[in-house]
Amino acid sequence: MSQSHLRVGIAGISGRVGQLLVEEVAAAGLILSGGTARNPAAVKGLPASVPVFADITDLAAVSDVVIDFTHADTAEAHAQALAAQGTAWVLGTTGLSAVQQEAVEGAAKTIVVVHAANFSPGVTLVQRLAQIMGRTLPAQTYDAEIVEMHHRQKVDAPSGTALAIGEAVAQGRGVKLADVRDSGRDGHTGPRKTGDIGFAALRGGQIVGEHEVMFTSADEQIILTHRAFDRRIFAAGAVRAAQWAATQPPGYYGMDHVLGLPPVS
Amino acid sequence: MSQSHLRVGIAGISGRVGQLLVEEVAAAGLILSGGTARNPAAVKGLPASVPVFADITDLAAVSDVVIDFTHADTAEAHAQALAAQGTAWVLGTTGLSAVQQEAVEGAAKTIVVVHAANFSPGVTLVQRLAQIMGRTLPAQTYDAEIVEMHHRQKVDAPSGTALAIGEAVAQGRGVKLADVRDSGRDGHTGPRKTGDIGFAALRGGQIVGEHEVMFTSADEQIILTHRAFDRRIFAAGAVRAAQWAATQPPGYYGMDHVLGLPPVS
Amino acid sequence: MSQSHLRVGIAGISGRVGQLLVEEVAAAGLILSGGTARNPAAVKGLPASVPVFADITDLAAVSDVVIDFTHADTAEAHAQALAAQGTAWVLGTTGLSAVQQEAVEGAAKTIVVVHAANFSPGVTLVQRLAQIMGRTLPAQTYDAEIVEMHHRQKVDAPSGTALAIGEAVAQGRGVKLADVRDSGRDGHTGPRKTGDIGFAALRGGQIVGEHEVMFTSADEQIILTHRAFDRRIFAAGAVRAAQWAATQPPGYYGMDHVLGLPPVS
Amino acid sequence: MSQSHLRVGIAGISGRVGQLLVEEVAAAGLILSGGTARNPAAVKGLPASVPVFADITDLAAVSDVVIDFTHADTAEAHAQALAAQGTAWVLGTTGLSAVQQEAVEGAAKTIVVVHAANFSPGVTLVQRLAQIMGRTLPAQTYDAEIVEMHHRQKVDAPSGTALAIGEAVAQGRGVKLADVRDSGRDGHTGPRKTGDIGFAALRGGQIVGEHEVMFTSADEQIILTHRAFDRRIFAAGAVRAAQWAATQPPGYYGMDHVLGLPPVS
Repeated sequence: MSQSHLRVGIAGISGRVGQLLVEEVAAAGLILSGGTARNPAAVKGLPASVPVFADITDLAAVSDVVIDFTHADTAEAHAQALAAQGTAWVLGTTGLSAVQQEAVEGAAKTIVVVHAANFSPGVTLVQRLAQIMGRTLPAQTYDAEIVEMHHRQKVDAPSGTALAIGEAVAQGRGVKLADVRDSGRDGHTGPRKTGDIGFAALRGGQIVGEHEVMFTSADEQIILTHRAFDRRIFAAGAVRAAQWAATQPPGYYGMDHVLGLPPVS
Repeated sequence: MSQSHLRVGIAGISGRVGQLLVEEVAAAGLILSGGTARNPAAVKGLPASVPVFADITDLAAVSDVVIDFTHADTAEAHAQALAAQGTAWVLGTTGLSAVQQEAVEGAAKTIVVVHAANFSPGVTLVQRLAQIMGRTLPAQTYDAEIVEMHHRQKVDAPSGTALAIGEAVAQGRGVKLADVRDSGRDGHTGPRKTGDIGFAALRGGQIVGEHEVMFTSADEQIILTHRAFDRRIFAAGAVRAAQWAATQPPGYYGMDHVLGLPPVS
Repeated sequence: MSQSHLRVGIAGISGRVGQLLVEEVAAAGLILSGGTARNPAAVKGLPASVPVFADITDLAAVSDVVIDFTHADTAEAHAQALAAQGTAWVLGTTGLSAVQQEAVEGAAKTIVVVHAANFSPGVTLVQRLAQIMGRTLPAQTYDAEIVEMHHRQKVDAPSGTALAIGEAVAQGRGVKLADVRDSGRDGHTGPRKTGDIGFAALRGGQIVGEHEVMFTSADEQIILTHRAFDRRIFAAGAVRAAQWAATQPPGYYGMDHVLGLPPVS
Repeated sequence: MSQSHLRVGIAGISGRVGQLLVEEVAAAGLILSGGTARNPAAVKGLPASVPVFADITDLAAVSDVVIDFTHADTAEAHAQALAAQGTAWVLGTTGLSAVQQEAVEGAAKTIVVVHAANFSPGVTLVQRLAQIMGRTLPAQTYDAEIVEMHHRQKVDAPSGTALAIGEAVAQGRGVKLADVRDSGRDGHTGPRKTGDIGFAALRGGQIVGEHEVMFTSADEQIILTHRAFDRRIFAAGAVRAAQWAATQPPGYYGMDHVLGLPPVS
């Protein structure tokens, strides 16, 4: 099937992410097959030819792939509906319970599921590279520090992505992040503990998201930086995942598979 | 008097800073007139022609300028001796009591005193520029954040220089740093408070000292960065101060006067 | 006059910059008094209460300040009309001939004229700070390098702002930029010439504009960075200039006066 | 064999790199088995127990590994001698002729040869990561730019390491660097050509070496930075390679093998 005939449905089409997905599906030259919304009649701004359903099964029936940034509590119903229809699933939902996660992975026996917390190609790449760095640059010699900056409205620190990068470094080093995490240094801290992974959070302006992981030895420093300029990148990455999903056998995949990143070990 | 005939004495000549000062006096082509030490007989590695005294008065008598990185508790005795001899004083001691500070400023009625916490030209410049930035970029629109990085042995955070840069920004904004300081963000912080000055501390390797002050609005960002590559810079700056001191009328000066920085008003 | 009653007119209201100015005048809570356009009838998207004129004199008559990002060849007519009406002038036009420049400065005897090539507060500040840095950090010891990055469509290098920052450094050092400019190093360059100011140009993505000036000695490095996130900053700065202009006596001013930057002397 | 009994010989022990290698062999707790020099009698500063030979065969006979940063014209003799003795070879020589390269690879059938242009773990890692980035971030969307900074004495631009990073990106993209290299932008350049890899060279102070590769799209930016603080890193990396070599079967290896970096495929 030519990619330009790929029919992409959007679960939660009326939300802010839904809107961006509509634009990115169009920008990629794919067919917008429809969407779901709680109140389909209230959805505005779509071409008349694009149907909006209340039921995911109806959307699955007219789509090759469904992109889904809705909620954890829709995961089981969506898993069942999409698997039944044989429709691929690009899933951005986080915070799944064990039962919900099981439902998602169950569906992946029948259909392609791409499940990721962050669809930015850059962030996905940075996580994988951070893991390689963690494995290659021993904690004995190289101190790892992670700095993130976000807009002034952000209410928690460090960011989820900063922690995910930290997890990747810890994984590369064969340790648990919880055992080596050192966030928010202030006051009489004592000397840095070998093997710790430090975190610092900056806030200012309307910064969409900047992340930096630094490895510093006595003799050299290696720094990996990611800057998101536009939230659009997350929608664009999900559409890239949808295009990739259409070409794969059933399975449970991450954004690293979409990007074809090399396995680490 | 030609600068090459300038006689520079070093209080505390046998310490680590003293050693660097010996090298920088030589590098600048000045005359090393002598030094002080608790146990003059034990001082090694100096040319035979360079006398080491136990008493500051003896050093003052043979010097045009004395560079002094010793201790707060020598300040009163040094003030008296140098003023009595008419010898200029480059003083790097911090943590003076009110009485000690008064003694230093009293001496400045008779002799040139250059007193600074940090003799690096770059750090001095950065502090002044940070003050101008604080005054020019209103807190309502521009969020100020300060990041510092130091070697893994450093036991406190943020660094004294980071706090001094923060003081400069606060001064430029007409507020007290203590009222707006936000150090070590971690956990559920809530949105950034307008006017706050944030601090973050990184630790790693053998970094001599990096400081960065960032002003971020919705539309632009201005960042000022200082990196010290070599501790030698502090000694070199003190020698530059000594050369400048030799040409000035009595008074109490800072490193900003040595550099000829414009007043902020 | 309360600032909220300030009447601001926009010359060239239908252009891209004109649109941004309309938004920024509203955001600042000022009165949009009208605009000019070649074909007033064709201007769309403005409230009915906002008149669009073909003649600058008509706009000047209803405005306290006119913001003008039109063309060099309107400068003489605008100078005459605004001076005649006593209306302040915020002028962003560059590339004026000597005769046109004379007309602008002539008007400044009667009215307030704020004339700048770049109304971003950050860029204006960076230029002034670069001048102070150039004066404080001697060319003998500190090598100055300027790096800029812009979007991939930009057709010339280095950017005008990079050159303006270079001019500021050169002015601080009392030299002419043309005598020390070193752009686009490539191949067998030989060792760096003391006193040179280096330029490098990066291109990529849709970067609005990043500029960095670095001073590097053997022992330390001082870097000043500016990042424009949104072209809106130029319009916002012009509106800030308009508000300032309303409070000043006649004269020929720059954006540095608006920001109250200290003179370098 | 326990690593602490590993006998390491240094070809060219009296040169500047040789000196650093002596220190790093000691720091790693290995046995310094000897060295070669043109005039062994003139070599100073070594313990009496460390023999200096004129002939590489003599050094090979007493060493498990020989580290060799000498010249291309010794490559054939060294290949023969080390292979004959079964001594591993850590080789940092560049600029080999086809015949010399063949001799080196020939020896690798009998002994372990680790051959690299740069033994810094960080630089090696950066090259591999740059290759992965080049493969993952398509040229159509992500513009690649490489910036390097070195001390003011450096006479050519861009640096060899910058070009090697560029090669890695080009390899990741399946193109030849020569076809897409764009160095030293200056003047009327026209818009950036899709797929080009840009290079910029900064010079200042005594910077040992900084390299940065940036990938910039409309929506995000990924930057990888390396900073060498001390030339010692190259010697330390060669000693790490020597320790690794002692545990491997014969073969022709690079520093990426020493670090266990994942193949890119």
